[in-house]
Amino acid sequence: MTRRRQEGSGTPGAGAPALGVPQPLGHRCWALPEGYIPPASTGPSPQMTSHETICLLNASPRDAEVAIHVYFAERSPAGPYRARVPARRTRHLRFNDLDDPEPIPRGTDFASVIVADVPIVVQHTRLDSRQAANALLSTLAFPVAESPA
Amino acid sequence: MTRRRQEGSGTPGAGAPALGVPQPLGHRCWALPEGYIPPASTGPSPQMTSHETICLLNASPRDAEVAIHVYFAERSPAGPYRARVPARRTRHLRFNDLDDPEPIPRGTDFASVIVADVPIVVQHTRLDSRQAANALLSTLAFPVAESPA
Amino acid sequence: MTRRRQEGSGTPGAGAPALGVPQPLGHRCWALPEGYIPPASTGPSPQMTSHETICLLNASPRDAEVAIHVYFAERSPAGPYRARVPARRTRHLRFNDLDDPEPIPRGTDFASVIVADVPIVVQHTRLDSRQAANALLSTLAFPVAESPA
Amino acid sequence: MTRRRQEGSGTPGAGAPALGVPQPLGHRCWALPEGYIPPASTGPSPQMTSHETICLLNASPRDAEVAIHVYFAERSPAGPYRARVPARRTRHLRFNDLDDPEPIPRGTDFASVIVADVPIVVQHTRLDSRQAANALLSTLAFPVAESPA
Repeated sequence: MTRRRQEGSGTPGAGAPALGVPQPLGHRCWALPEGYIPPASTGPSPQMTSHETICLLNASPRDAEVAIHVYFAERSPAGPYRARVPARRTRHLRFNDLDDPEPIPRGTDFASVIVADVPIVVQHTRLDSRQAANALLSTLAFPVAESPA
Repeated sequence: MTRRRQEGSGTPGAGAPALGVPQPLGHRCWALPEGYIPPASTGPSPQMTSHETICLLNASPRDAEVAIHVYFAERSPAGPYRARVPARRTRHLRFNDLDDPEPIPRGTDFASVIVADVPIVVQHTRLDSRQAANALLSTLAFPVAESPA
Repeated sequence: MTRRRQEGSGTPGAGAPALGVPQPLGHRCWALPEGYIPPASTGPSPQMTSHETICLLNASPRDAEVAIHVYFAERSPAGPYRARVPARRTRHLRFNDLDDPEPIPRGTDFASVIVADVPIVVQHTRLDSRQAANALLSTLAFPVAESPA
Repeated sequence: MTRRRQEGSGTPGAGAPALGVPQPLGHRCWALPEGYIPPASTGPSPQMTSHETICLLNASPRDAEVAIHVYFAERSPAGPYRARVPARRTRHLRFNDLDDPEPIPRGTDFASVIVADVPIVVQHTRLDSRQAANALLSTLAFPVAESPA
């Protein structure tokens, strides 16, 4: 007997392994020390606008409520910013677009902690088009282990 | 007594440590929240065509059957896409080339979950040549822990 | 009963999940095998100056004392360099700016180990503007597991 | 009583925490599914030559013997390539320079598994200067858990 159910396991031919998506998948807290919205851009908007993005994957069968806590060098944290990722959906959220309770300042170092009420997976991507060609970076966020209850 | 066999351990000189490849190596499920096929390219095809790639390493002595589940922001998931990675081989698969059961749309945010029937390792790379020079990003995918049976 | 307290949990509406930041968050030791300060730059200083950065997130309610140990290919290690990250703050530290006990040489391969007295999270970012457009890389550092006491 | 010794712990002032480097630090096996040596370059050699690098950090007090196993899509694995990383040193090794037992082909997909006889940390970096400005990618390699003996 396993703790894990299979979701969306497709319909392979007879004899093929099922290879469905295991549940739960991910963590409920992720941390990102790097954050910076480049204050300038080159190229057409919005695709080539310099941006800082968190990509949220909710592979679970339940909608996820997400809170984003933003940390700075010289002031107390902002947020939490609230977002929702529906069941079995991804959402690529630009920090540029967050404005409730306050916008994220451009050209300023920040960090973030993302907390959800169901397990998700979080990846960080920046497109920096300040100079003539765009640059990219990406990394998974740091998955925070759940403490034993 | 160990659970782990040594594969492909080479032929070091007498007295040198063997340093073979331990088995099993990797996980059977990996998640990638970031996914985007840039809709334009600059430079010669196919090398400089903008692409989104998953690199699959099967260091095991058994062929791997792989299923790729693709998640979107506004519709239900696509796939699973099926692939095979032979024993002791790597396969660098472009999302651009997936078309069964349907192509992956360009210029659209997606995410993916990769499930295999033997342990593998998965890394994500994008080449974006929309502007005059190419940009690159890469990160390991998130390894999903196996639940205790 | 849980080992983990909630910090900065915001003020969601009635019935919404709290989604505060769990404590502790992170590790006390992180390693970064890659390190290189590009010896040239293109574009305005200091934003586009080629740099090698470690982003430190201290989401805890206590100030963090940090020591940075720097390793080279052909000489004994330098440091430790000392830094402080206040409680609930982030600090993005350029290796370019470290000079006590000695500056980090430009154009030279190095690696680093970051040790703190409270759990933190560490991410590595380089901006390389040696050529006409800047390039970026980023990855989380490697979290060193605490040994059982 | 702890299993972990402190190495290179510096000389903080009286009352400051020691913050030395814990031992052991890292893993003895790492995997990298992505590998590709771009077959062309723009700019001065060797700094701007397109290259694929593994950065090895040996923070331990013992020299490390390293074996690199290279996997391909369509042929059996090459290697192992042998390297040494002295105690408390880093080594940034270009796949471009490996030639014993055979060179790594350019413009060809590969993957690698790095095995050492003491714990190390491994990070992967590529500089791609095929087009007018260089692009960079970097990620930690995948740390393979030691099986219980």
